[in-house]
Amino acid sequence: MYTQSCLSETLRHRRQKLAALIDFPAVLWSGGSSPRNFAANLFPFRANSHFLYFAGFPLENAAIRLERGNLQLFIDDPHPSSALWHGETPTREEIAAKIGADDARPLTELKDYLENVATLAVQDATTWTKQSQLLDRWILPRQVPEGIDLQLAKAIISLRIIHDEAALVELRKAAAVSVEAHQAGMAATRKAKLEAEVRAAMEAVIMGYNMTTAYTSIVTVHGEVLHNGHYHHSLQPGDLLLADVGAETETGWAADITRTWPVSGKFSSTQRDIYDIVLAAHDACIEKIAPGVEYGDIHLLAAGIIAEGLVDLGILRGKPEDLVKMDLHALFFPHGIGHLLGLDVHDMEDLGDLAGYEEGRKRSDRFGLSYLRLNRPLKPGMLVTIEPGFYQVPGILNDPKVRDQYQYLVNWERLEQFADVRGIRIEDDVLVTESGSEVLTAALPNKAEEIENLVLGDR
Amino acid sequence: MYTQSCLSETLRHRRQKLAALIDFPAVLWSGGSSPRNFAANLFPFRANSHFLYFAGFPLENAAIRLERGNLQLFIDDPHPSSALWHGETPTREEIAAKIGADDARPLTELKDYLENVATLAVQDATTWTKQSQLLDRWILPRQVPEGIDLQLAKAIISLRIIHDEAALVELRKAAAVSVEAHQAGMAATRKAKLEAEVRAAMEAVIMGYNMTTAYTSIVTVHGEVLHNGHYHHSLQPGDLLLADVGAETETGWAADITRTWPVSGKFSSTQRDIYDIVLAAHDACIEKIAPGVEYGDIHLLAAGIIAEGLVDLGILRGKPEDLVKMDLHALFFPHGIGHLLGLDVHDMEDLGDLAGYEEGRKRSDRFGLSYLRLNRPLKPGMLVTIEPGFYQVPGILNDPKVRDQYQYLVNWERLEQFADVRGIRIEDDVLVTESGSEVLTAALPNKAEEIENLVLGDR
Repeated sequence: MYTQSCLSETLRHRRQKLAALIDFPAVLWSGGSSPRNFAANLFPFRANSHFLYFAGFPLENAAIRLERGNLQLFIDDPHPSSALWHGETPTREEIAAKIGADDARPLTELKDYLENVATLAVQDATTWTKQSQLLDRWILPRQVPEGIDLQLAKAIISLRIIHDEAALVELRKAAAVSVEAHQAGMAATRKAKLEAEVRAAMEAVIMGYNMTTAYTSIVTVHGEVLHNGHYHHSLQPGDLLLADVGAETETGWAADITRTWPVSGKFSSTQRDIYDIVLAAHDACIEKIAPGVEYGDIHLLAAGIIAEGLVDLGILRGKPEDLVKMDLHALFFPHGIGHLLGLDVHDMEDLGDLAGYEEGRKRSDRFGLSYLRLNRPLKPGMLVTIEPGFYQVPGILNDPKVRDQYQYLVNWERLEQFADVRGIRIEDDVLVTESGSEVLTAALPNKAEEIENLVLGDR
Repeated sequence: MYTQSCLSETLRHRRQKLAALIDFPAVLWSGGSSPRNFAANLFPFRANSHFLYFAGFPLENAAIRLERGNLQLFIDDPHPSSALWHGETPTREEIAAKIGADDARPLTELKDYLENVATLAVQDATTWTKQSQLLDRWILPRQVPEGIDLQLAKAIISLRIIHDEAALVELRKAAAVSVEAHQAGMAATRKAKLEAEVRAAMEAVIMGYNMTTAYTSIVTVHGEVLHNGHYHHSLQPGDLLLADVGAETETGWAADITRTWPVSGKFSSTQRDIYDIVLAAHDACIEKIAPGVEYGDIHLLAAGIIAEGLVDLGILRGKPEDLVKMDLHALFFPHGIGHLLGLDVHDMEDLGDLAGYEEGRKRSDRFGLSYLRLNRPLKPGMLVTIEPGFYQVPGILNDPKVRDQYQYLVNWERLEQFADVRGIRIEDDVLVTESGSEVLTAALPNKAEEIENLVLGDR
């Protein structure tokens, strides 16, 4: 949590910066909880990230109005009976004081303050329906904003994309807890029989700090399935376990870490060969990060190193630079090198590619580039993930068209010797600094021997 | 998980029973995932419970059509590219075989099978909007169903309210894992500094079995706040920790257990006095459970025992039976004695009071009875919670009107001596049997000394 004085100061700076960019008022809603299996059984409330950026706290069913640096808070006082069910909650005036609001009113009065305001859609249907009704135009979460909403989106992106000190304090906390979660996961692997047990050990660390996971954890021996939200597989000694788990602080700031470790505590020689290629790509990308560098070039750097490594191992045939042009690397590395990180794990992805792509740029149609989520020149204060990987996805590699198209460029027989490497990813969170970069998750080892020692227990 | 043959058999029995009750077709949707902070960052999918009851598996974006004992499955085959992101998922035909469907078609064909069908609303807005569009009438999750939908609801309630053997297998699993979670919570209290750490230890057990929590866990030293989804308080030696945590199996069946234990491992004498009253009420209620008994009478039994206990301690003045009539017990026990339990933790509460209240009965306006969620005569196969409690809710006890109204019936000075008892609840899951009852959660001790031993570590 922010300390109080610090928080209101931080929020004032943020809205002053916003006021320098737009000359119309903006209203941001926090949203409400979504029901699970019945109305009173709710998923945990997650406030809208744009709201969080300017309001600091995850207030439910609230809105803020920002105009010329002023902050108006709209929230209802708790219902008298709610103390019984939800405890003594702070009053509107107490919250207003805490966040430095200039004015505070019941939510019902918001309708009188909506003339010519811009807004951004929240995710829950109850609230975006309300937004649409109150503003008398459709505010839809999956639609790219238009008009003044688009201007507002671009202004907010230009602020949120460069993290201020208060944001970094939270992001570092999320990183530190995520590091501890991964260490716990490696230790838990010694006794665990199921993926679910390792996941539990990791998420328990996050929960124990009263944080939440920033996204659905991936903890799987089938790392070749990129978004694998299942944890039912048993752990076998020859397996690699891929864990992509990150914490989110109480005020919404995320971390995003992946490590891959051998269930037995020892990489096989084939696993180790591939691991070292992925790590080499990871290290080279981080080394290259600096202001002015194009993030797309970092992706291509990883692609080149992976292609080169696979040529050296005899899995690919040809010159690495030619193979990358033909997207051969993407057979094994079919996702982007990373993404923005902040209040969202894919930061500001609720706005489509507006945040990830520099104005005027569009997603490539190329198989090797279409999943790139970030395509901008880097600037100090940006936080990005670097997450190269190697996967043997049956859906790609067993596709007869792929086999036919690449029958000579891939040494399919040689590849069979690497059957025990289904999926490897190494992911860290990297802050662009004036002089280069800082890895916020550097406390978690990633060299193969270090990983082995953590799994085996450092004796 | 059900074994395969067993599952299709169970599902066939269920829909044959349904066919005996309604003479029109029914379509049940499973629903879809709800977005968290952006479209690709989702809350965990939870299938609609009515769908789960007849389809057995939490299939996302699917529907089933039930008519005269036949089962039609509507689900799209996975998109070819989805193997990359979500892994090899079973085909429609494989799922159909597993659940014993008579016919299986793409979801897009559902529109041709909707004439005169009844349905029930799911919780996520995308799906209930779709339901409404396809059926050309409003299907709203918060509205009590009408017409054939109401007939369908009543038919399903009459099935789901009496658990079959397959349901009981799952409910026992949920109970067993929840018992282990509570034991882990008590053990974790020895070293924990924060509520969050105890919660983490409990939920880690549930997650480790690849289950989920059936509802937002309550793990708090402020048990007087009934729905306290916060875990930030530190644990002090004199505190009581109230934990209301239950597991849900992979196919959706829930448990619901509450225990209250002293952080230090030793109840103070005042805490012990109140604990024993709550436990006496708990035991007497379970003792009374049998076919034909009115659940409302069990609530009143608890109220009477709590009133009597508080008279004995000198906190209340008067005859217990008179005090209950005046709702004096409800100053300290302001909720119902329990509820139905099954696929939902408040089973079928998505249908309002249709399941909880016998036809023709309505919620009471009385403060002491209005929160009663179940008001029916008990039948063999019903599963209910028994969860008496004692709470000192500031919003109730510090209310000047309450102080004035009950200035003589409550010995307010005596009550002050019990200031270290903010909230106690003891909750178990009780199956009504032919001969009486069976406590599914009986493996978890609830006597004060046993609880102390579990917290201290049984030496």
